[in-house]
Amino acid sequence: MPKIVVDVMPKAELLDPQGKAVTGALNRLGTSGISEVRIGKRFELTTDGPVTDELRAQVQQIADDILSNSVIEDVVNIDFGADA
Amino acid sequence: MPKIVVDVMPKAELLDPQGKAVTGALNRLGTSGISEVRIGKRFELTTDGPVTDELRAQVQQIADDILSNSVIEDVVNIDFGADA
Repeated sequence: MPKIVVDVMPKAELLDPQGKAVTGALNRLGTSGISEVRIGKRFELTTDGPVTDELRAQVQQIADDILSNSVIEDVVNIDFGADA
Repeated sequence: MPKIVVDVMPKAELLDPQGKAVTGALNRLGTSGISEVRIGKRFELTTDGPVTDELRAQVQQIADDILSNSVIEDVVNIDFGADA
């Protein structure tokens, strides 16, 4: 079955304490070359059937309304072509 | 600066209660066509400089050891080519 991938990230102007904690941990562990880590979510939606235009519109709506909180997060990418 | 994206998902054989909750919510809200939702993490690592082979190896190591818990999660993708 086709898989749709929705990527949601915290807005750029927000602090993202979880990402800051990982950045700090990497520095403490001696990793060099990485200046910032930000952590978002990746949703994999498995569909019942083929990806129609109607389903695309519905997933766009779901991504904006349910999977992300538009006050603090952005939907950065929706990939309709991922295989299961 | 270049951005490296690491995608981590719960292993296929695990239940993913968070995803199950979203699947249930979508069904209650009358969405059709989506049979399953699984929720993972998306890490965006901003690098200090260009992505060298050494940095690639280091990021692979970080993804496996720090960003994911190999008991319950898989690193499904590392994209070294994402632009900032």
